[in-house]
Amino acid sequence: MILALAGGVGGARLANGLAHVLPAGELTVAVNVGDDFTHLGLPICPDIDTVTYTLAGRNNRELGWGVSGESWAFMDELKALGGPDWFNLGDRDLAKHALRGEWQRQGWTLSQVTAELARRQGIPHAIVPMSDDPVRSMVLTDEGELPFQDYFVRRRCEPRFVSIRYAGAEQAKISPGLAEALADPALEAVVVCPSNPVLSIGPFLAVTDIAAALRARRVPCVAVSPFIGGEAVKGPAAKIMRELGEEPGAASLVGHYAGIVDAVLCDHADPAAGQTLGGIAFHAADTLMRDDADQQRLAHEALALARGLA
Amino acid sequence: MILALAGGVGGARLANGLAHVLPAGELTVAVNVGDDFTHLGLPICPDIDTVTYTLAGRNNRELGWGVSGESWAFMDELKALGGPDWFNLGDRDLAKHALRGEWQRQGWTLSQVTAELARRQGIPHAIVPMSDDPVRSMVLTDEGELPFQDYFVRRRCEPRFVSIRYAGAEQAKISPGLAEALADPALEAVVVCPSNPVLSIGPFLAVTDIAAALRARRVPCVAVSPFIGGEAVKGPAAKIMRELGEEPGAASLVGHYAGIVDAVLCDHADPAAGQTLGGIAFHAADTLMRDDADQQRLAHEALALARGLA
Repeated sequence: MILALAGGVGGARLANGLAHVLPAGELTVAVNVGDDFTHLGLPICPDIDTVTYTLAGRNNRELGWGVSGESWAFMDELKALGGPDWFNLGDRDLAKHALRGEWQRQGWTLSQVTAELARRQGIPHAIVPMSDDPVRSMVLTDEGELPFQDYFVRRRCEPRFVSIRYAGAEQAKISPGLAEALADPALEAVVVCPSNPVLSIGPFLAVTDIAAALRARRVPCVAVSPFIGGEAVKGPAAKIMRELGEEPGAASLVGHYAGIVDAVLCDHADPAAGQTLGGIAFHAADTLMRDDADQQRLAHEALALARGLA
Repeated sequence: MILALAGGVGGARLANGLAHVLPAGELTVAVNVGDDFTHLGLPICPDIDTVTYTLAGRNNRELGWGVSGESWAFMDELKALGGPDWFNLGDRDLAKHALRGEWQRQGWTLSQVTAELARRQGIPHAIVPMSDDPVRSMVLTDEGELPFQDYFVRRRCEPRFVSIRYAGAEQAKISPGLAEALADPALEAVVVCPSNPVLSIGPFLAVTDIAAALRARRVPCVAVSPFIGGEAVKGPAAKIMRELGEEPGAASLVGHYAGIVDAVLCDHADPAAGQTLGGIAFHAADTLMRDDADQQRLAHEALALARGLA
C-alpha cells in the first residue's frame, strides 16, 4: 500500500504514474481541498477533479486542465447573459459539479462523493480528500486578502503573495480515508507528489491531526520536487517562492517538509541534489514528466527511493 | 396596455404574436409558475423560459422547447456518470438556470430575475411571474400524487389524471408586475393565451388575490381555446380533460374560466363556435399558429374581439 499526497496537475501526473505501476487497490491518493470553492451554487474541487480525470485517463491534454472532449456552450451563454465569466466551467465538467452538489445536499460527505465519482469513472485505486471539512486557502497579497480562486484564476496570481492562511484548518479533521491509509499496517511509504508546497501540500500540514498522523507514521516519506531550473513545471510555485524571499528550488522544501519528509527526488541540476539539508536527503532524478512513460519511470524511482529507506 | 396570461408553448406563441403587433412596452405577459421546480439544485421555470426564449426569437423550433443552438454535453456526461437523466438540461439553458439561482441566493425575487433575463435578451415588453411565491402543481393520479415534472416529464403524463392541487397557492401573493398591470388605468384588455386551463391557467386562479384582481378588472377578458378538433395543439390538455370526464373542446373552458373570461376565440369546427355558454361568447377563428404570421394574425383577432367588447 502506497499513500500519495497530491495537489493539482503536477501531483496528478505522479499519482497517475503510481496508479499504473501499482496493482489495483494498492494506492490511496489524498488530495488537497484548499482550492475548493462554491461558484454559481456548485461545489468545485479543482484538485480532486484533476486527479480523478487524470487517473481515469480523461484529463484534457490540450488545455492542461479539465476533462477531455470538453465544450463551452454554457460559458458562451453565461457570457451572453452577462453572468460571471471569470471561472471557466465546461459543459461536461458541470455535470460532475452538479452531481456532487446533489449528493452533498443528500448528506453525502466529500469522501463519499469523491469515491463514487472515481468508481463511476473506473478508477481502481482510492482517491480521498485530505478532509471532509472545509479548509480554504486565503492568500494575503499586497492588494489585501483574496480567496484562493480569486487570487489564482480571477487575478492570475498577479498580486504579490505575502502569506497564506488555511481558513477552517483548526476545526478540520483528517478524512477517514487518509486516516485509514496512514494507519494501515500494509502501508509501505508516503509519497508527497510534486505539488506546490504552499498551496497544495500546505493545507494538509495545517490540519493538526493530518500533520500529527504524518509525523507519527512508521514508514518512509519521500517527496518529488516541483522545481526544475528555478521554475515550477506548472503553476505559480516559483513566483510565490520568490515573493516569499525563498529561492525556487528543492532546498526551499526543507522549510515546508522538515519533520515529515525523509528524502526528496529533485532535478539533476538542482543545487540541492546530492546534499542533506534539514535532515532531508536530496537525490537527483529526471523529474520532468512529459508523458505516461515519464510518470511511471518517476513513480518507480520514488518507490525505489522509499523502499531503500525502509 | 395589454395583459396576457400564459403557460408554456401555446401561450408563448400567442404572447409572441401580441409582442409583435403591440408597440414596445405595451404588453405584460404574466406567466404560470406551477410547473417550476428545483432540479440538481437549479431553479427551473419552464413556462417563464419558454415565453422568454420565444419573445427573444431564441426558441428552439426543431425541438419545440428550449433555446435554439442548444447542445447536450452536460446531459451526455451526467448520463455517463449515472446521474439523474430524466429531465433534459441543455448546455446553454443551464447558464440561465445557474444565473437565476445565483441571483436568487443574492436575494432577488423571481420577478426581478425574470425581468433582468428578459432585458438581457432584448425583449421590449414585460415578462412577469404570476407570483414570486412558490405555487407547485401536484397531480393526483391513479398511481398517487406526483409533483408536476414527475407527472409531465418523468412519467410522460401516462398515469391517469384524477385531480390537481396547487401547493402553496393559499399563501401565495400576486406578483407586483401582475398586480400593477391589472391596476394600470391604461390597461385595455386581458388575453388568456391558448394554454392548458388546468395546468397553466389553473395556478393563477388558485391564488386568491390573482383571482380577485382578475374578477375586479374593468376591461374585457378574452381567451383563445387551446383545443382544435378535440385535441390540444400541444401538450396533454386533451388527455387530461378526457380523464376528468370533460370533452376536450372550447366548451370545457366554461368550467374553468366562468366569471373571468368574457369571450373565447375557438376553432371554426369547435361545437361551441357561435354559442354563448355560461356567460362566455364563443367566436370562431383560425386558432392554429403554424408560424409568426399566424401568431400575429391571431393576436390581432384577439385584440379586435376584446376591443369590440369594450
